[in-house]
Amino acid sequence: MQPTAATPLHAEVPPLHGRSNPADVADLIATVEDDQVAACFRALEPEQRVDVFEHLGQHDRERLVQALGQPELAQVLHGMCSDDRAAFFRHLPEPSRLALLPLLTPAEQEDVAHLMAFPEESAGALMSTEFAAVPPDIPVERAIEELRALAPRRETIYTVYVVDSERRLLGAVSLVDLITAPAGSLVREVMDPDVVALPADADREEVARTIAKYDLMAVPIVDPERRLLGIVTEDDALDVIELEKSEDAQLASGIAPDPAGTPYSQTPARLLVRRRVVWLLVLLLTALVTARVVAAFEATLASVVALAFFIPVVTGSGGNTGTQSATLMIQALATGDVSVGDWARVFIKELLIGAALGAVLATVIYLIGLAWPDARQVAPVVGATMVAVIIWANLLGALLPLLLRRLGIDPAVAGAPVVSTVVDASGLLIYFGVARLLL
Amino acid sequence: MQPTAATPLHAEVPPLHGRSNPADVADLIATVEDDQVAACFRALEPEQRVDVFEHLGQHDRERLVQALGQPELAQVLHGMCSDDRAAFFRHLPEPSRLALLPLLTPAEQEDVAHLMAFPEESAGALMSTEFAAVPPDIPVERAIEELRALAPRRETIYTVYVVDSERRLLGAVSLVDLITAPAGSLVREVMDPDVVALPADADREEVARTIAKYDLMAVPIVDPERRLLGIVTEDDALDVIELEKSEDAQLASGIAPDPAGTPYSQTPARLLVRRRVVWLLVLLLTALVTARVVAAFEATLASVVALAFFIPVVTGSGGNTGTQSATLMIQALATGDVSVGDWARVFIKELLIGAALGAVLATVIYLIGLAWPDARQVAPVVGATMVAVIIWANLLGALLPLLLRRLGIDPAVAGAPVVSTVVDASGLLIYFGVARLLL
Repeated sequence: MQPTAATPLHAEVPPLHGRSNPADVADLIATVEDDQVAACFRALEPEQRVDVFEHLGQHDRERLVQALGQPELAQVLHGMCSDDRAAFFRHLPEPSRLALLPLLTPAEQEDVAHLMAFPEESAGALMSTEFAAVPPDIPVERAIEELRALAPRRETIYTVYVVDSERRLLGAVSLVDLITAPAGSLVREVMDPDVVALPADADREEVARTIAKYDLMAVPIVDPERRLLGIVTEDDALDVIELEKSEDAQLASGIAPDPAGTPYSQTPARLLVRRRVVWLLVLLLTALVTARVVAAFEATLASVVALAFFIPVVTGSGGNTGTQSATLMIQALATGDVSVGDWARVFIKELLIGAALGAVLATVIYLIGLAWPDARQVAPVVGATMVAVIIWANLLGALLPLLLRRLGIDPAVAGAPVVSTVVDASGLLIYFGVARLLL
Repeated sequence: MQPTAATPLHAEVPPLHGRSNPADVADLIATVEDDQVAACFRALEPEQRVDVFEHLGQHDRERLVQALGQPELAQVLHGMCSDDRAAFFRHLPEPSRLALLPLLTPAEQEDVAHLMAFPEESAGALMSTEFAAVPPDIPVERAIEELRALAPRRETIYTVYVVDSERRLLGAVSLVDLITAPAGSLVREVMDPDVVALPADADREEVARTIAKYDLMAVPIVDPERRLLGIVTEDDALDVIELEKSEDAQLASGIAPDPAGTPYSQTPARLLVRRRVVWLLVLLLTALVTARVVAAFEATLASVVALAFFIPVVTGSGGNTGTQSATLMIQALATGDVSVGDWARVFIKELLIGAALGAVLATVIYLIGLAWPDARQVAPVVGATMVAVIIWANLLGALLPLLLRRLGIDPAVAGAPVVSTVVDASGLLIYFGVARLLL
């Protein structure tokens, strides 16, 4: 990632869009004080309000719920896309949810309840029920006529799904294919029957990956009988990937992710402390094992104090090496490049890599130790330890994510803090073991 | 990220797509041995070959370059999208590039040279020159007629750009708006003049963020005179985000990213060693400062050996805390939530957070130290140190990314290894300073 300007327009380019863009207006509302937010929202044209509301984060949406009257809220809720509306209700605190549900029509209430029943991170929770579907045996001209009428009430009509009388998915056809089809063709003749579909319980990351892999504009979600339940569009997939990206990085650094994805500047310090302190405490208690290891070798340490100089060097190098291999493996697992069954191949590859890295680092630290009078005595110990610790840390970093995946735990928790804390204790055990052997 | 199945289809759902999908065929070709790859590719229908080639990674594309004849390669190259073709030539080794360029038509050669002239990670390098553009003063029916003819040779016709006679961007109109416009309307009347555009030197991550923020299907790229140069489509933005995601994580863990994004399983061990060893060596040499710090306090340490027990606890907790705040700040900078100018606000917020975290961790370690006979003497030192180190590490982790961004360096390098190595030396300086003061 390179440093980028805050504005999407370069200084030399004259402004090509004004403040009328819903995403920009939403940004503006996010900066307004609580007592101004309703007035600001009311200043919008009624037809703009839904678009702006959909671009707001959950925090600002809830501020508006507090500030606006029921008729205004009802108008916004009626206009929202079904997936956005369900996500909004999902993240709402129970009392607000109960207060707002009666503002919806019975059909909308049923739709929200239906979508909220799917687990939080599943395809079902992400999908919109506003897709365009046509029967197979009508001419393309009639399909286009139907789409023209449907367009305003559908998430997308660029991909049109072909379903039978029981809503079973038969195929898909793009709007371009309909438009460019020879006059009089039937939908069935121009549709693609090999359509990629996902079940409603698929993980949202799988949804995003499928859309990216097959370059889809939307992926249909089906039930076990192949009945079309909804669609997830490409822009929702993009949002998911952005959210997963930050969640994974936070998990890897020992921070409990925030499901609503509230930005840093809007998260109170109190909440950040709560999301961070648990892992820090767990790791602190784990680090006491390391303290015990050092204590067990008190006598060795008392006779050769120079050994203490290299404690941070040994633990640091081990932690850095393990962090590297863990990062590569977490990524390889996430993209499906490596699976748990490949552990033997990973073991051999990382054994070789660890040996090569260990040899380089050990040689450097050994030569430096020899050149440092106070440390000359322990140089062979540090050198020998370095080879072993690097190989061990490298294997641990690579295999821990595989083990976690095998146990059904998200491998992203095998981030730097966890790996280096585990490596610290075992690394120092190796260090003092070698010291007792050589000195 | 949750563990996901390797296949996009759940076991209960019958297969909805066969092996005919280009992305699946590409996956298959990636697993074939070098001497089989040409035969496998030739088994495809000629019209499928371009699609499959576009879904292959650079490594497999280059295997095909070696294996296929010139007429076959020429046919594939002619069929490729202009952005894909340029990216392919960009990553090709010089000799192959010179051998393949003559297979293109003069116009294609010019297009490749034009696109390759933009810097690697810029909007210009990512854009396709195959966009659909129409003049403003024709009726929508004629525009649709033109699009119908253009469709097969354009990346997308779902967003149509309206340009004047000098190719200056006047607005954009979606295919849906054209189709649903009242008969006889002019393009000018239905277009949106507030179109978001980016300059060709915008960073590719800014492109992806703009597409995500404004929910665009494509973003137009313009020159300083607002002339339309090309477009970047949503699926390319998705690919960029995936690539940046893994590059950032690798940088943060001290791995030099691979520009071609070769998957782990296809990267030789030798190359992985080379991408990892440099940072490990830099950090090893930096860690020697830490060794020097410990050595400077040799006398203190010799008189109270129990101090050594907590060296890994102090460095580990500092590193973990700094990694957390660095991760949050790298993300906040990347999304534009925080900018360099906010450093004072960040300083105060992180000072409070660090104090709270430090107080909790210090209390816990102090009580544990008291309860451990060998360590009772040093418990007050460890407790007092912990407060100071956590506050310091937390501030360092939060402010280092801001400093790097200010210096024009990618803040993602402020990952766990770098932060913890810097924290190690300063943390131990605090530790032994406090020890000398209290003991």
